[in-house]
Amino acid sequence: MISLEALGEIMGAYLYPGKEGAALEIKGVAPLETARKGDLSFFADLKYKKFLRNSEASAVIVREKEDGVNFAQLVHPNPRLAIAKACLKLYPIRHSFYGQSSLAFVHEEAHVHKTVTLYPHVFIDHGARIEQNCVLYPGVYVGPGCFVGEGSVLYPNCVLMEGTKIGKHAILHGGSVIGGDGFGFVPTKEGNVKIPQLGRVVVEDNVEIGPLCTVDRATFDETIVREGTKFDSQVHVGHNVDIGKNSLVCAQVAFGGCAKVGEGFITAGQSAVGAAVNVCSHVTLGPCSAAIQDVTESGEYMGMPLSKLKDWKKEQLALKRLPQMRLELKRLQESLDALEKEL
Amino acid sequence: MISLEALGEIMGAYLYPGKEGAALEIKGVAPLETARKGDLSFFADLKYKKFLRNSEASAVIVREKEDGVNFAQLVHPNPRLAIAKACLKLYPIRHSFYGQSSLAFVHEEAHVHKTVTLYPHVFIDHGARIEQNCVLYPGVYVGPGCFVGEGSVLYPNCVLMEGTKIGKHAILHGGSVIGGDGFGFVPTKEGNVKIPQLGRVVVEDNVEIGPLCTVDRATFDETIVREGTKFDSQVHVGHNVDIGKNSLVCAQVAFGGCAKVGEGFITAGQSAVGAAVNVCSHVTLGPCSAAIQDVTESGEYMGMPLSKLKDWKKEQLALKRLPQMRLELKRLQESLDALEKEL
Amino acid sequence: MISLEALGEIMGAYLYPGKEGAALEIKGVAPLETARKGDLSFFADLKYKKFLRNSEASAVIVREKEDGVNFAQLVHPNPRLAIAKACLKLYPIRHSFYGQSSLAFVHEEAHVHKTVTLYPHVFIDHGARIEQNCVLYPGVYVGPGCFVGEGSVLYPNCVLMEGTKIGKHAILHGGSVIGGDGFGFVPTKEGNVKIPQLGRVVVEDNVEIGPLCTVDRATFDETIVREGTKFDSQVHVGHNVDIGKNSLVCAQVAFGGCAKVGEGFITAGQSAVGAAVNVCSHVTLGPCSAAIQDVTESGEYMGMPLSKLKDWKKEQLALKRLPQMRLELKRLQESLDALEKEL
Repeated sequence: MISLEALGEIMGAYLYPGKEGAALEIKGVAPLETARKGDLSFFADLKYKKFLRNSEASAVIVREKEDGVNFAQLVHPNPRLAIAKACLKLYPIRHSFYGQSSLAFVHEEAHVHKTVTLYPHVFIDHGARIEQNCVLYPGVYVGPGCFVGEGSVLYPNCVLMEGTKIGKHAILHGGSVIGGDGFGFVPTKEGNVKIPQLGRVVVEDNVEIGPLCTVDRATFDETIVREGTKFDSQVHVGHNVDIGKNSLVCAQVAFGGCAKVGEGFITAGQSAVGAAVNVCSHVTLGPCSAAIQDVTESGEYMGMPLSKLKDWKKEQLALKRLPQMRLELKRLQESLDALEKEL
Repeated sequence: MISLEALGEIMGAYLYPGKEGAALEIKGVAPLETARKGDLSFFADLKYKKFLRNSEASAVIVREKEDGVNFAQLVHPNPRLAIAKACLKLYPIRHSFYGQSSLAFVHEEAHVHKTVTLYPHVFIDHGARIEQNCVLYPGVYVGPGCFVGEGSVLYPNCVLMEGTKIGKHAILHGGSVIGGDGFGFVPTKEGNVKIPQLGRVVVEDNVEIGPLCTVDRATFDETIVREGTKFDSQVHVGHNVDIGKNSLVCAQVAFGGCAKVGEGFITAGQSAVGAAVNVCSHVTLGPCSAAIQDVTESGEYMGMPLSKLKDWKKEQLALKRLPQMRLELKRLQESLDALEKEL
Repeated sequence: MISLEALGEIMGAYLYPGKEGAALEIKGVAPLETARKGDLSFFADLKYKKFLRNSEASAVIVREKEDGVNFAQLVHPNPRLAIAKACLKLYPIRHSFYGQSSLAFVHEEAHVHKTVTLYPHVFIDHGARIEQNCVLYPGVYVGPGCFVGEGSVLYPNCVLMEGTKIGKHAILHGGSVIGGDGFGFVPTKEGNVKIPQLGRVVVEDNVEIGPLCTVDRATFDETIVREGTKFDSQVHVGHNVDIGKNSLVCAQVAFGGCAKVGEGFITAGQSAVGAAVNVCSHVTLGPCSAAIQDVTESGEYMGMPLSKLKDWKKEQLALKRLPQMRLELKRLQESLDALEKEL
């Protein structure tokens, strides 16, 4: 619980207290329909605003002050950001198991800080170092020489292969595999010869990696996911890829080997950046799109191969009309033929 | 083993016994080429019917009675359904380990029914409840407050994050992660701010989820996979998605956050339903297709963006002829220019 | 460490020793920019050749002899192959844990060769057989009756479901699930009826399967991944699929049930082969492409549906110009109308 006033300050919102005043204690956050007395609420989208009048919420985050309402209002230019901050305050991430389970296996030459939580069935190999306040859930595997920075959380069954480096306050969701071999083979008449993958993966501070992602180690050097970048589920990152700061990558996106993507990259789901393709900073891809050639200008793109978003819409519209256009072309030919005959 | 007569009854098939009569004991089910004496066989596709005459099968499921054959015949209008029913009878799912392994970790505040099978290296956290006859394979993680209904099976390394609810007789295949955080971030100048994901996942009765799927928890409220729905491998379901009853979802399909899909949805592999898109009931998507706008009419669709299946074929045919069409257009222009000059 | 001369022999390269002679000891392999004294280096791409003059490498693999340089040269027609061979020699794959951990669970009716390495938290069920020199990492699950051939490596959290057969010297990366149920259901008015999946998976010798792949068991008979084939991450193989020898399959590719692909198949990422589609040998697919009909001629293809690579480029170019073409068609119609009026 926290007072409305304190919460407003944390959120950076302007407070219009209701009849219960600024000292009102806020217990939780909930959407308008399900909020109860003591809750802070919001509407993420204007279409939910209709629930405003009948909501039982004690306070609501709004973009602009509403008139004729009884509840307290917290005015913020970015309501989603305000919600995020309120939730982070009221619902801090908790982990249920404390201490270092005797059912975890820690190699005697591993370094695990005493404040680290180890659930049962964790495995940590020699030369690995786990810094303070990390939490390793059941089934996590930490290979030889890995490093996990302060305050990072590895959810169940995450795998860090040899030499992987995870920064501070990173979150790796369940089942992700970081540092598996890059895909490198030389086809010969006798079969495919493996190119040993000798590099490693570096995941920087404040990165979040969704469930069941794969980030492959570099052939030589490093595969890098830079600071503040966030992955959704089932994202794949090939060997030697470099993903810029503060990127947002939706589900089932793939980055081919040696792709390089600038900061602030945002992509919808099922998209791709091809092998060895460079994408400049502040590029946004729509869903099911693929950068198979370098992108040198910031902006919004879509399609496979990419077009500017505006152009893609025109192309697709034209494509839907293409069968009709074929008929028009045929009729035009006939008219012209008739005309020529006539003359 | 079961008699032909009893099997025919279970299958709802009409029996024409062979010379060995209706009491013949059936030992197994196998395709025509590999079936042996005592086996029941079938042909899933007419192209395999050629193996009929030389098959050693003792009985065959057919859509229509065959003349001049020696084996017993079980006539059924839906042979695939008949095979399914025969196999379910002859090959009940078995689990090899019985009891609750001392190598499983069960929190003292978890409720695990005495009939539940726990393989070694299972982890069950506080407040979780596992109902009768469930089977939890090695490496399964059940987070705080999860619920698993009667008779459900969790194959190796499945992960249920906090608060996930699984219905009765559900099957979760290996490595799937249910209840990981939804993908919610607010981009700001200082980086991406996480929106805590406070909702949960509900997987209803008789749902089957393939290996390595991800179903994200809701931001608030619930992500729902409704009764009788079946997923293939590597399916992704975003936060707050609602997937209707009895849907069939092939491999590598993604549902963006807040997508809502009606009952009887069927989709081929690698397709997608975009974030916040509504799809009405009884819609079928072809492979590699994407619903990026609401679908309000039942039927078969294909492509990205979607067209009706019939139209998609025309569009793609036209696209293949487009380079040729460009030439035709050019020639037409030239003819017209020549004509105008002439006049 | 190995002498330059011995290394050249292993690589099948022609040696031009530097001033330190053919007996120079080589310590490692590194790219030109980061190589130090004692290292062998290379340039994978001509664009990196600029680093050649300033490199500290003691020896370099080149396609053709360079003049006026001090370092030793190893001339090989296929430098990538030469690098692979050098790395395989200098960096043999190592596994850090030796012996059979008491924290692994081995069923008393399983057969595990005494030379097998079992990390903690491995589970091996009855009737499974693990041949000599295999290595099973933490969290690996081996179901009843599985077979793993000599020298194979199963990285953390791999799952082999009942009856799976893995050949010799295969590598399965972290979290892959082999032998899960194929996706077979019969839709009925009462819901989807499961077709029990009674076949198995066979992964032949020298196959490598990337992290988080799924290979489904056959309905009857076998799903086969043939000798020498290599998968990148998150590949999906449906029931009864047959993938030919020495194929190379990039990330997030899917093979629908009963697909059959000839030997030497190569595909870029996010592509697919549809259910029951046959692809002849020596076919190459570009990224995000899908074979939804049989391919009967070897060659390079791209798109969905497939075109020959050359044609696909023309089609896409034409598509980008389609909105312009629509305008041209309209103007042409107007000219013709004007002309007809005039006459």
